[in-house]
Amino acid sequence: MTERTRVRRLPEKAVHDRDTLLAVLDEGLVAHVAVVDAEGQPYALPCAYARDGERLLLHGSTGSRLFRAMAAGAPVCVTVTLLDGLVYARSLFESSMHYRSAMVLGAATALPDEEKEAALLRLSEQLLPGRVGDARGPNRKELAQTLVVSVPLEEWSVKVSSGPPADADEDLALPVWAGTVPLRLVPGEAVDAPDLGFGRPVPPYVVDHPLAVRD
Amino acid sequence: MTERTRVRRLPEKAVHDRDTLLAVLDEGLVAHVAVVDAEGQPYALPCAYARDGERLLLHGSTGSRLFRAMAAGAPVCVTVTLLDGLVYARSLFESSMHYRSAMVLGAATALPDEEKEAALLRLSEQLLPGRVGDARGPNRKELAQTLVVSVPLEEWSVKVSSGPPADADEDLALPVWAGTVPLRLVPGEAVDAPDLGFGRPVPPYVVDHPLAVRD
Repeated sequence: MTERTRVRRLPEKAVHDRDTLLAVLDEGLVAHVAVVDAEGQPYALPCAYARDGERLLLHGSTGSRLFRAMAAGAPVCVTVTLLDGLVYARSLFESSMHYRSAMVLGAATALPDEEKEAALLRLSEQLLPGRVGDARGPNRKELAQTLVVSVPLEEWSVKVSSGPPADADEDLALPVWAGTVPLRLVPGEAVDAPDLGFGRPVPPYVVDHPLAVRD
Repeated sequence: MTERTRVRRLPEKAVHDRDTLLAVLDEGLVAHVAVVDAEGQPYALPCAYARDGERLLLHGSTGSRLFRAMAAGAPVCVTVTLLDGLVYARSLFESSMHYRSAMVLGAATALPDEEKEAALLRLSEQLLPGRVGDARGPNRKELAQTLVVSVPLEEWSVKVSSGPPADADEDLALPVWAGTVPLRLVPGEAVDAPDLGFGRPVPPYVVDHPLAVRD
């Protein structure tokens, strides 16, 4: 933790164990990446990402000026937020959400060409576990069109909001229901591609996606 | 649309109608707000937000240096991303997600004190529709602790990814399943606060939260 990642607001929600950081990063599918353009305008870009050991991987097009800025070492903030529930407190002030949110600060680094393919397989594996080996991997042209950058898991913070509403004592007697509602991202039934050939069943790794088999 | 919000990457996914922008902003619960600190470090902050007519509202603590920067007019980017599905293409290159993502650029403006209460009610209404009037509204102390900023819906872009996998013709014959899996954020059963008094049923607006009653 550094001064930049010390959780100043709602510090009681800060979590400092690395296991929680890794659990949030491993469960998420989308990160929002903050990066600044040459004119000083910040952007929050939704990106697929993967955790690869002690770093995060992000990929984008060589045609993206923001990805080129990242590949050139721009400072970034990669945030992964999992929305876990709604909190109905007795006051609107204490009403909020349950969430787990990880924020990683650092300078992005472009991966050298010889490391790109393995990184893209890792990115596929986080989003669509089991798919690598079944689908066609990247060819030379696709690799040339893709930038992959990494951000080390060095400077980070995690906030977790969970548990019952935190109403003030003087609000407990208010004549209103209070409680929480869990939220969960749930997969529906797989839909065959319309041009799918005859006799191709949905593979087990699709049915058993981690989002479907959480307890 | 300005040069900054022209969708350069995957321009076929750009949507230019305002109805789609409003639909994405009205369905979301969490925005990621990009803002830069005094040292040039960008942050992607997860925030509750609301659409209020032609502007977005965000609230934070007066103790948050990043919210104070926003209140002072810092350039921001507010991104709302709805994750709609997984796309299993025949190639990893075309495999991806279904999503709808709205990005709003602009300078934030602090709301004057006399507008804060109405804005906070609007923020509650987006997250927990029906709750205003039932829960206790903000008191003077809570209002004094809260900054509310607005960002006009002037400079924005929307990207939508939907439909079947977009495999290249030469990949269609690969012997692999292809298709999509819808994803949806689903509420579970409401959980009473442990200190809830006897005989307080879960209100209809909790059971009928918009996330629960989508078709």
